[in-house]
Amino acid sequence: MQRTVDYTHGKMTMIDQTRIPAELVTVELSTPEQVADAIVKMKVRGAPAIGVAAALGVAIASRNSDASDKGQYLGEIERAAHMLRNTRPTAVNLFWGIDKMVCTAKAALHDGLSVPDVKQIVDECAASMIEEDEAVCRLIGAHGAELMPEEGHVLTHCNAGALACVSYGTALGVIRAAIEIGKRIHVYADETRPRLQGMKLTCFELLKDNIPVTVISDSMAGSLMRKGHVDCVIVGADRIAANGDVANKIGTYSVAVLAHHHGIPFYVAAPTSTIDYALKSGEDITIEERAHEEVTHIDGHRVAPVGVEVINPSFDVTPAALVTAIVTEKGIAHPPYKQSLR
Amino acid sequence: MQRTVDYTHGKMTMIDQTRIPAELVTVELSTPEQVADAIVKMKVRGAPAIGVAAALGVAIASRNSDASDKGQYLGEIERAAHMLRNTRPTAVNLFWGIDKMVCTAKAALHDGLSVPDVKQIVDECAASMIEEDEAVCRLIGAHGAELMPEEGHVLTHCNAGALACVSYGTALGVIRAAIEIGKRIHVYADETRPRLQGMKLTCFELLKDNIPVTVISDSMAGSLMRKGHVDCVIVGADRIAANGDVANKIGTYSVAVLAHHHGIPFYVAAPTSTIDYALKSGEDITIEERAHEEVTHIDGHRVAPVGVEVINPSFDVTPAALVTAIVTEKGIAHPPYKQSLR
Repeated sequence: MQRTVDYTHGKMTMIDQTRIPAELVTVELSTPEQVADAIVKMKVRGAPAIGVAAALGVAIASRNSDASDKGQYLGEIERAAHMLRNTRPTAVNLFWGIDKMVCTAKAALHDGLSVPDVKQIVDECAASMIEEDEAVCRLIGAHGAELMPEEGHVLTHCNAGALACVSYGTALGVIRAAIEIGKRIHVYADETRPRLQGMKLTCFELLKDNIPVTVISDSMAGSLMRKGHVDCVIVGADRIAANGDVANKIGTYSVAVLAHHHGIPFYVAAPTSTIDYALKSGEDITIEERAHEEVTHIDGHRVAPVGVEVINPSFDVTPAALVTAIVTEKGIAHPPYKQSLR
Repeated sequence: MQRTVDYTHGKMTMIDQTRIPAELVTVELSTPEQVADAIVKMKVRGAPAIGVAAALGVAIASRNSDASDKGQYLGEIERAAHMLRNTRPTAVNLFWGIDKMVCTAKAALHDGLSVPDVKQIVDECAASMIEEDEAVCRLIGAHGAELMPEEGHVLTHCNAGALACVSYGTALGVIRAAIEIGKRIHVYADETRPRLQGMKLTCFELLKDNIPVTVISDSMAGSLMRKGHVDCVIVGADRIAANGDVANKIGTYSVAVLAHHHGIPFYVAAPTSTIDYALKSGEDITIEERAHEEVTHIDGHRVAPVGVEVINPSFDVTPAALVTAIVTEKGIAHPPYKQSLR
C-alpha cells in the first residue's frame, strides 16, 4: 500500500481515509487550508500521521510564500501553524510536527540565511519527517515483536496501523514485525464505534497484507477474554503523560480494565513524539468532543431516534497502572513510567 | 405506547421492532409460522416478549385447528410448538411460554374435555399471559425502585424495556417505577452493537415517556464510570442459571466487569420465568451465533471491508459474582443466589 501521507517534489498527497474500505483514493493538497480541513474531517487521522500531515501543511505554506521579507515570510508560516494547531486538540504529535517546522524556519532565519534558503531547509525537513516516521515505526515493531506470543490472538482497538502513520504502523507495526520474525498472530479488531476505524481501517490494511483478522463489536471483547481467546492487547496512543497515563481512542480504557480483570497484558505502542513530558498526568489532557452525528448516524444514515441526547468524547485516558508496557522506537518502557519514559 | 404483543378476540398483533425508530408499525399475525418468522427476524425480541409471543403462536395453532380428534389436535399443537422452539436458543422464556401452553392443552385433554372446550381454555390461558406479564413487570418495578438512587445516573445495556415485554419493562420498568415514586433518574443507554437495540429501542421508548436519556457508544461506558457519572447499572436477562449466572445481550459481561472495577452496583431485573433452575451454572447456556451481516452491515448498508472474518455471539454470560442483586416479581435476590433464587 502507498504511504498514508507523502511529499515528493513539493507535492503533498494523502489517502482519503473517509472513503476506506469502499475505495482507496489519493488526494493532492496544495494549501495549508486544505491540510487543516483534511485533519478536521479525518481524511487523515492517527497521531503520527496527523503530526506529519500538519508539518507538511507548514512546509506547503513555506513553499507557497512569495515573501522576500523575512518577517513577512515568518508571519505567513506562523499563520499556517496557528490554523493547523486549531484542528484537533488531543494528539500531541500534531503540535510536535508543527513546532518542529516553525522552529526549523526560525533557527535558519536566526542563522542569517536568506528566505529562499530557509524555504529549502524547511522543505527538506518536512520530507525527512516522512522517512523518519517510517524508521520509527520499524523500530517500534522490532522492539515490540518480542512481547508478542509465538502463536496467539492479539486484540487491538481503533487503528494504530499503517494508516495512522506514514506506513507500517505502531501497534499494527508490532504485529507486522512479529509476523515477519515467524510468529503466528491472529488479530481481533474492535470495530471502534462511533467512527468504526477498527472495522474500516484496521481490517482493510490487515486484509491487504494477508494478516488474519476477525472484526468484533466493541462489546464482545470482554466475553472473548473470559473464554481465554485473547493473549494480549496492543493499542496506539494519541498522547502519553509523563507518568505513563495514555490518552487514546474512546474505548481504550474499557479494554484496559477488561485486560486487567483477566490478567492479560495491555501494551501501548507509540513514538516518543507522542509523549508529553510537560504533562504530569493524563487528567490534564484535553479530550476532543466530536460531532454528535458520528454517533447518531453511520455513513450519513440516521440510526438514532430524532431528539435523543448524545455525548461523543473522541478519546479516553487509561491510567498507567493498567498499562503493562509502552513500546517506543527507543525501546520498551516498563513501570514506573515516570522514570522509564525519561 | 400500545402493547408490544397483544391478543384480543383471537387476533394477535405486534409492534414490528425492526422498523423502530423510523416508524411505529403494528403487524397482525394469523399463523404460528408467521410468529416463528417474527421471532427469528427479531420483529419481536426481549426474553419476556418472545415468551409471550411464542405462547400466542401455540394459541393460534390451537385456534386455527379444525381437528375434532383429540390426537390430531394435540399433534397440530405440538408441531407448532416444535417449530417455535427452534427459533432462538438462548432466552428460556421462549420454552417456558410454549411449554405452558402445551401443558395447559394436555391437562385439559387429560381431564376429558372436548376439543372445542380445550381450545377455549388454551385461548384464555394465552390471553392471561399478556396481563400476567404486565403485572410481573409492575412488581419488578416496585421492588427494584428502592435500589435506584434518589437522584442520579443509571446505565443500561440493550433494551429491557416495554419493547422487551408486553409493556412497562424489566430494567426500564425499575427505572419507570423509581421515577413514579419521585426519584430523579437520568439514563445512559449503551447503543448496543451490533443491532443497536439500546440506541433504537431504549432511547425510542424513553423519549416517548419523557424520561431523560443519553445514548453512548458501548465503548464509552468505562470512561463515564471512571469520571463518576454512573451511579448504578441495571440490565435485563435472557436466562439466569440456578447459581445466579446471567446470560444477557452481548456486552453485558463487559459492563459488569467495568462496574465491578469501579465499585458500582450491577443489578439484573427479570421475571422468575427467566430463571432456569435446571442449569447449575451459566457455562451450560447455549449462546446464539447470529448472522455476520449484523456486524458487517448497518441497516443493510455495508460498513466492513469485503471478506473480513466476523464473529457475532448474540449473548454473553455474566458470572453471579459480578451481580449485586437480581430483581424479580417476587422480590430482590441477593448473593448467594443458589439459596435466594429458590
